[in-house]
Amino acid sequence: MSAAQPVTMVRIYLTEKQGLKQLMAYLHDESKVRGVTVFRAISGFGKSGVMHSSRVLDTALDLPLVVEFFDQPDKVRETLQALSSLVEPGHLVTWSAEIPDLHAS
Amino acid sequence: MSAAQPVTMVRIYLTEKQGLKQLMAYLHDESKVRGVTVFRAISGFGKSGVMHSSRVLDTALDLPLVVEFFDQPDKVRETLQALSSLVEPGHLVTWSAEIPDLHAS
Amino acid sequence: MSAAQPVTMVRIYLTEKQGLKQLMAYLHDESKVRGVTVFRAISGFGKSGVMHSSRVLDTALDLPLVVEFFDQPDKVRETLQALSSLVEPGHLVTWSAEIPDLHAS
Repeated sequence: MSAAQPVTMVRIYLTEKQGLKQLMAYLHDESKVRGVTVFRAISGFGKSGVMHSSRVLDTALDLPLVVEFFDQPDKVRETLQALSSLVEPGHLVTWSAEIPDLHAS
Repeated sequence: MSAAQPVTMVRIYLTEKQGLKQLMAYLHDESKVRGVTVFRAISGFGKSGVMHSSRVLDTALDLPLVVEFFDQPDKVRETLQALSSLVEPGHLVTWSAEIPDLHAS
Repeated sequence: MSAAQPVTMVRIYLTEKQGLKQLMAYLHDESKVRGVTVFRAISGFGKSGVMHSSRVLDTALDLPLVVEFFDQPDKVRETLQALSSLVEPGHLVTWSAEIPDLHAS
């Protein structure tokens, strides 16, 4: 018997100036999804081709961030509908994954 | 002829105080999976809703970490069975991916 | 009507000394893929089992990096063919994902 639980993984690409606080507040206080993690990248560029990089020692730096979370597919679907005002088009990717049952033989 | 190799990707969510050493020792010394990478997040929260964030300049900080690895599906399946005592339930996600043959035309 | 766009996610595993500049130059100037992000890991090991870790306070440190990008499957396929000379075999993983339409009901 497989007790693996299907989940949807979400990765959202933004920069430090693009409303991380609002996004995290929504995910934490309203949506209450499981397992939200925020990563700071050292470099990156988007559609515009403008490079954001930590090589430049600039404290005002606007580095790329990734907000990752996962939860049951239905829960994620609901959550995404509320994110349209907080995330730029094309900056959010999802895929199917699973939480395997580590105790299954 | 496609020579893409199927792999299973694994991401494990823990914090700095939750036995990273033991997990890495197992993956490195016992399981010998390929391609283990550990990332430190700048912020995150789990089911509990307790936020772990590097905004607070606290050296005793317990920041979120992600341990990522991939290998052949069978190898990963074996490895996961040994991880049940090292990983909290619901803190490990897997999905199918592939190593494409970059030399295929 | 679902307006989700299929994309291929790519993650490339390298270290600071393994030609990041060339890879980024190619992705930025030639391939022009969308959404390239570079992460620095705090620890990791590859097939060789040699651990690269930021625990050791060594400025000459060769830490693991991950370059992540995504784009339409055809665009990614083209891009990967040009990467064979820049990426070590087995150090590049791909999987299918999608950009959901956040405005769909």
